[in-house]
Amino acid sequence: MLIQDVIIKKREGMSLTAEEIHFFVSGYVKGEIPDYQASALLMAIFLKGLGGEELSCLTTEMIDSGIRVDFSGVPGIKVDKHSTGGVGDKISIPLAPLAAACGVKVPMVSGRGLGHTGGTLDKLESIPGFNVGLSIEEFISMVDRTGLSMIGQTRELAPADKLIYALRDATGTVPSIPLISSSIMSKKLAEGIDALVLDVKVGTGAFMTTLERAETLANTLVDIGRRAGKRVTAFLTRMDDPLGEAVGNSSEIIESIEILRGRGPADVRELTLTLAREMLLLGGVAASEAEASAKIDAAIADGSALAKFREMIIEQDGDPEVTEDYGRLPTFAHVLPVGADREGYVQSINSTEIGMAGILIGAGRAVVSDTVDHGVGIRILAKSGDHVAKGQPLVEIQYNNADGVSEAARRIAAAYVIGDAVPERIPLIRKIIR
Amino acid sequence: MLIQDVIIKKREGMSLTAEEIHFFVSGYVKGEIPDYQASALLMAIFLKGLGGEELSCLTTEMIDSGIRVDFSGVPGIKVDKHSTGGVGDKISIPLAPLAAACGVKVPMVSGRGLGHTGGTLDKLESIPGFNVGLSIEEFISMVDRTGLSMIGQTRELAPADKLIYALRDATGTVPSIPLISSSIMSKKLAEGIDALVLDVKVGTGAFMTTLERAETLANTLVDIGRRAGKRVTAFLTRMDDPLGEAVGNSSEIIESIEILRGRGPADVRELTLTLAREMLLLGGVAASEAEASAKIDAAIADGSALAKFREMIIEQDGDPEVTEDYGRLPTFAHVLPVGADREGYVQSINSTEIGMAGILIGAGRAVVSDTVDHGVGIRILAKSGDHVAKGQPLVEIQYNNADGVSEAARRIAAAYVIGDAVPERIPLIRKIIR
Repeated sequence: MLIQDVIIKKREGMSLTAEEIHFFVSGYVKGEIPDYQASALLMAIFLKGLGGEELSCLTTEMIDSGIRVDFSGVPGIKVDKHSTGGVGDKISIPLAPLAAACGVKVPMVSGRGLGHTGGTLDKLESIPGFNVGLSIEEFISMVDRTGLSMIGQTRELAPADKLIYALRDATGTVPSIPLISSSIMSKKLAEGIDALVLDVKVGTGAFMTTLERAETLANTLVDIGRRAGKRVTAFLTRMDDPLGEAVGNSSEIIESIEILRGRGPADVRELTLTLAREMLLLGGVAASEAEASAKIDAAIADGSALAKFREMIIEQDGDPEVTEDYGRLPTFAHVLPVGADREGYVQSINSTEIGMAGILIGAGRAVVSDTVDHGVGIRILAKSGDHVAKGQPLVEIQYNNADGVSEAARRIAAAYVIGDAVPERIPLIRKIIR
Repeated sequence: MLIQDVIIKKREGMSLTAEEIHFFVSGYVKGEIPDYQASALLMAIFLKGLGGEELSCLTTEMIDSGIRVDFSGVPGIKVDKHSTGGVGDKISIPLAPLAAACGVKVPMVSGRGLGHTGGTLDKLESIPGFNVGLSIEEFISMVDRTGLSMIGQTRELAPADKLIYALRDATGTVPSIPLISSSIMSKKLAEGIDALVLDVKVGTGAFMTTLERAETLANTLVDIGRRAGKRVTAFLTRMDDPLGEAVGNSSEIIESIEILRGRGPADVRELTLTLAREMLLLGGVAASEAEASAKIDAAIADGSALAKFREMIIEQDGDPEVTEDYGRLPTFAHVLPVGADREGYVQSINSTEIGMAGILIGAGRAVVSDTVDHGVGIRILAKSGDHVAKGQPLVEIQYNNADGVSEAARRIAAAYVIGDAVPERIPLIRKIIR
């Protein structure tokens, strides 16, 4: 088989066979197919697409470039959750211990922040000592003993995805729904899970800004998961405003703990509880939404959800006392409020710009090699639909180093659209694909 | 400027600016843009196309990666001819001396054969001693003194084209009309010509098998040439049957000499005279077709066309006596006739297959590194529309080495379609774009 022929076939919009997809992925990983042929094929895939069967094969080949975590020795249904990324999206952090406290087995492999979206690993690392670098054996053992573990991507999981993603990043082939989908699903399916809850974000702070495109992505992800024999539910959720009040790292840990205490912002609570219910249903620990809700409410009320979070912190070498004393978390030295430039209703917030402002103050990364200041962040004081007076603070920038703060303030002010009309409310949960 | 942004722009079907095209070509030639980014851009160009202004810029950048031959010191209008390649297409060989004998200045840079199409350089090298490797200075001087020179591509002319072509060949991006067009025109315009006659082949032995695609190619070539301020005429010509009776190297030199003597096959004569008339018109040595025809007829009748060919051979270190004694050319030892498998009319000949049979006996190249046996070839005895008896020879295979001959005979037999109906005649000149 010649890779040129595979490229030409896709260039002409034809479907590739399982053998051709295997030839490409395995040849590329082994270095037998050079980057310049791989990138031509990726551009052809970007412009001509991949069908369901092709996507399923591509995902399988990416998984099989590494190991599949073997949870066969761990009883129970293993359920993970994946978000396509947003601003202030700390949902995994309260969600995983909450579901685990209700009896679901939650093996979660997360990522770091890059660009305007934060990363669960960076947020967890705000907790002094917290170790996201467990080995696969430690990960399996911890899920078995405690019901959850939250770790980072390891080299053993879908290494082809890492190679291909780096090439896509350099060759303008990132925002392709088929390529995004197989990248996400190869990593998730390599985790050895039985079921998956997907939080597909749509809005100004998401990679998919239209409901139509987000829905196509969600359907593609669900289709790949089901072809692999997994139970998958996708939620299309609003990512116009930042989620909650905290955008940062330490501050998002605090907000997550507040959720586990039955407090915290309404949107974070609603989304966490909605996704938790689905995890309980998929995980077979609740037979109905009502039963799932009751178990979740009890786990929060009796403290077992927070206790599960503390157990995870201890197991992963972190300081569990952060849950009782937020002062043990990294923090900020200075505050700069950003005031409204007029009176009126907040019509919308361009959350991508809020995320970019976070990078400017050190809360996020512009490039992979950037370091993160876990203590800093942006506190959201006004959300869409709120009425504000002229000069009233819209956000507080919580910073340590003054570099970039005035530029961050400028971008945040521009991200808020304030007008006279009372804006229409967009529901948080926009669609469910079961 | 980031090359990723240029790739993304073309991926989205937008037009690239002159600066962006310059950034790509110059960066690629300098090695600052790696192959994997260049190949992604080439695939995006393949699938999204290039507009007239973009193509003009791309062609200019490819020319400016090398030198432009400076004919400013040579009086007269310099006119070249380019064919997109066919089987038995020796037209350049009688055409160039014929036009030069009539007073046109003809600086011609030709190529070698590859795949089913032969190459002018290989045919010229059948002439013992003939040197196609003149320097640019020798080339200019010879055109000045004698009115013509026929040489091979030099490293100084459009080096970017050579680099980009090699990458296209490896990445499934060869048959793109914009990329083919800028490749052809960059080499031709770098020659420093004032006018160009294009012979765009269409049919079973051509790269373009449909009139529609050939016409798109011709219009694209003409447009690039005119934007560069050149006078360009394109002829769309039939390449269904092989041209003439000789497919090979020595044998095509003999057929060319016959044309210069006023003899030879009708189709070769018609095409040579048609293109020669246009070169005289573009070259300003005739004011009308009638005047051009009269000059051409006279140059053949008085022997000056043949004398010009001999002069060129002498100047380029070849043996001019080949024109008087065909026995001085390399030849073949054996002949194998391929007979008709039934009685009837030749409906069509798949000329690509005739060309591939030529490779099998050593007359052509499957890959660039193959060597050519100049003496061997295929003599076409029956053409489309001819009536043949069962067993009557369709061709004679003229060979030295028996390897591949039976396979060549099998492919040739399969290339002839014989049936009862008298087939429709397709004119040799299918369309003229002036």
